[in-house]
Amino acid sequence: MFRNKIELRIPGPAPVPPQVLQAAASPMINHRGEQFKHKLPGVLNRLKPIFKTENTILSITGSGTAGMEAAVANTVNPGDPVLVLIGGSFGQRWADICNQYQAKVYELQYPWGEGVDPEAVHDFLQKHPEIKVVFATHNESSTGVLNDIEGIGKAVANSDALLVVDAVSSLGGSYLETDAWGIDIVCTASQKCLLTPPGLAFISVSERAKERMKEIKSPRFYFNLLTYEEMLLKGQPPYTPNLSNFFAIEEALDLIEAEGLDNIIARHYLLRDMIRAGIQALGLKLLVEERWASTTVTAVVPEIDNIGDFLKNLYFNYGVELAGGQGKLATTTFRIGHMGYATPLDMLTTLAAIEASLGKFGVATAAAEQVWVEAMNKNR
Amino acid sequence: MFRNKIELRIPGPAPVPPQVLQAAASPMINHRGEQFKHKLPGVLNRLKPIFKTENTILSITGSGTAGMEAAVANTVNPGDPVLVLIGGSFGQRWADICNQYQAKVYELQYPWGEGVDPEAVHDFLQKHPEIKVVFATHNESSTGVLNDIEGIGKAVANSDALLVVDAVSSLGGSYLETDAWGIDIVCTASQKCLLTPPGLAFISVSERAKERMKEIKSPRFYFNLLTYEEMLLKGQPPYTPNLSNFFAIEEALDLIEAEGLDNIIARHYLLRDMIRAGIQALGLKLLVEERWASTTVTAVVPEIDNIGDFLKNLYFNYGVELAGGQGKLATTTFRIGHMGYATPLDMLTTLAAIEASLGKFGVATAAAEQVWVEAMNKNR
Repeated sequence: MFRNKIELRIPGPAPVPPQVLQAAASPMINHRGEQFKHKLPGVLNRLKPIFKTENTILSITGSGTAGMEAAVANTVNPGDPVLVLIGGSFGQRWADICNQYQAKVYELQYPWGEGVDPEAVHDFLQKHPEIKVVFATHNESSTGVLNDIEGIGKAVANSDALLVVDAVSSLGGSYLETDAWGIDIVCTASQKCLLTPPGLAFISVSERAKERMKEIKSPRFYFNLLTYEEMLLKGQPPYTPNLSNFFAIEEALDLIEAEGLDNIIARHYLLRDMIRAGIQALGLKLLVEERWASTTVTAVVPEIDNIGDFLKNLYFNYGVELAGGQGKLATTTFRIGHMGYATPLDMLTTLAAIEASLGKFGVATAAAEQVWVEAMNKNR
Repeated sequence: MFRNKIELRIPGPAPVPPQVLQAAASPMINHRGEQFKHKLPGVLNRLKPIFKTENTILSITGSGTAGMEAAVANTVNPGDPVLVLIGGSFGQRWADICNQYQAKVYELQYPWGEGVDPEAVHDFLQKHPEIKVVFATHNESSTGVLNDIEGIGKAVANSDALLVVDAVSSLGGSYLETDAWGIDIVCTASQKCLLTPPGLAFISVSERAKERMKEIKSPRFYFNLLTYEEMLLKGQPPYTPNLSNFFAIEEALDLIEAEGLDNIIARHYLLRDMIRAGIQALGLKLLVEERWASTTVTAVVPEIDNIGDFLKNLYFNYGVELAGGQGKLATTTFRIGHMGYATPLDMLTTLAAIEASLGKFGVATAAAEQVWVEAMNKNR
């Protein structure tokens, strides 16, 4: 019915502001020429306040997974003991990549729908001081859990291990204190909270991580971060980058800087709280308790027979696209993305479609509006 | 002087037609949803007539080098003997990647500025029947040489080796008969002759290559082509793709299909011949003899002291951006890109800037115009 105007509320790619899309349509330039020489370090430096880091930030043309693989390929030698924290599909992805690189993978499993306990990480590392790298997930998009990376950072700081964090679906939509929390490598991607189409991965790298990279023998060419760093000093990428994404993210960074990171993150908390209030008002269960609840994606346990049909009905008849569950939650949950270019009004339209499709007119939106107005009154 | 209107005549990225740039600015969609399920196989199937293949074509979000590394990572086990044909920077890149994957690399070096002799490949493979893969370069962009892949294909067909070809800067701008010439894997990228911004690599894979991939133990996750093939059967990419590039290439394929591949390639030959005639009329030397001359990039040996200054003058004062030389040709050559979205008139403006900057008014353009008119008269 609405094929040409679908509300995209999946956990990424997130909708992109029209002015950013327009910037993406800029004409090509020489990636080894005068203009890009300023554009490349310019964009990477402007990302530092969002990463909250003074570390070097590098960009790879690829998806978030490309960034994750670069993190593994540059820190893991075959046989190296590593600890992977797994509470969803993206934690599992760290383990899958580490296994490819023949690491000795220790898995710390935590329940899908809960956050990892930093104490458990601490205890594990005390028992296994040989661990070289800890791979963690900031926002586990498959469950909508935002992990306590500050706590994990403290646990890892008491060991010799590097801390590598997947912040693909959180960076720019919730706080991540790369330097203050002691994170050696942070991976993110353009298409979540950074208001840009997919196609670029960004990776921050500490000095300690760079030292480690020099000792790594794992095969890597496109993902060799030392090459990216060396070329960045000349203002060049090693390989032809996705120029359109660079044009786009410059415009996106203008928008982000104008709104301000604190305001953006406060907005994400509000969006989350509106969605949670609306879903609960409908009598539907939330997968995740508030203390772990993601600011960018919310998983719902609707207790209905066929979630696929429910989502198709929303898409084809109500014009809202949500995402199904992932992994072992595939048949029991659906997920609502609320990241990046999203406002309280967008949450109301999403909830309106859900409540209308269930015949519960006005129920979820009423609850969400109340959360919104309360938040505004508090900020007065 | 012309910072906002530069004629981009480098060996890629090539200029992108405005209607393709506009398409790239389309709003985001779900890469696992209804629309992309048709878009992904649609685009890959439409590339088959350009690849001249019935093989599976896969896409990776990344540069051409990402595609090259995928080809190596999926066909080479540590210790495997491979033959790399090297006559420029991009042949060298094959060797560099193969060395990362611990192949036993045999190099067949041929002069920079000449094509490889298929007879030499034949002889080498007769002496080394253990070779598992031959890595070749169709268009060596560092020298402007178009290699005789048909001849190389015949040489490799007499062995058990797979043939892998880098056609990044040629596919769609000169003939490559993937199936008829027996090429197991062809790599190309979006930003050369396919009229699309950089960000996507495309790879065709023969059945024989797929069988080989199943035996490969080299670490690979993002570059595991078997994952891409498996997911393609569901109409999905394994990882979030560069959606803007998919929107763009659909429009680009409309333009390519409307012009027709034969006409496009004839146009590239004309562009090449105009550039060569113009450069020679100026008394400048061409690096490559006509029999090996690329249809997409021409290297010039200008015999002037400082090529960097010459190119800067062209860029800042005449508004034309050419590329310097690469590798051992860095200080003796410059390169003119004439691929994709380029017309005879574009060649005239490029030559006009060069001749004007040398004070040889009208000389190169006159020669090139003559080539153009002769070609038109022939086609009448």
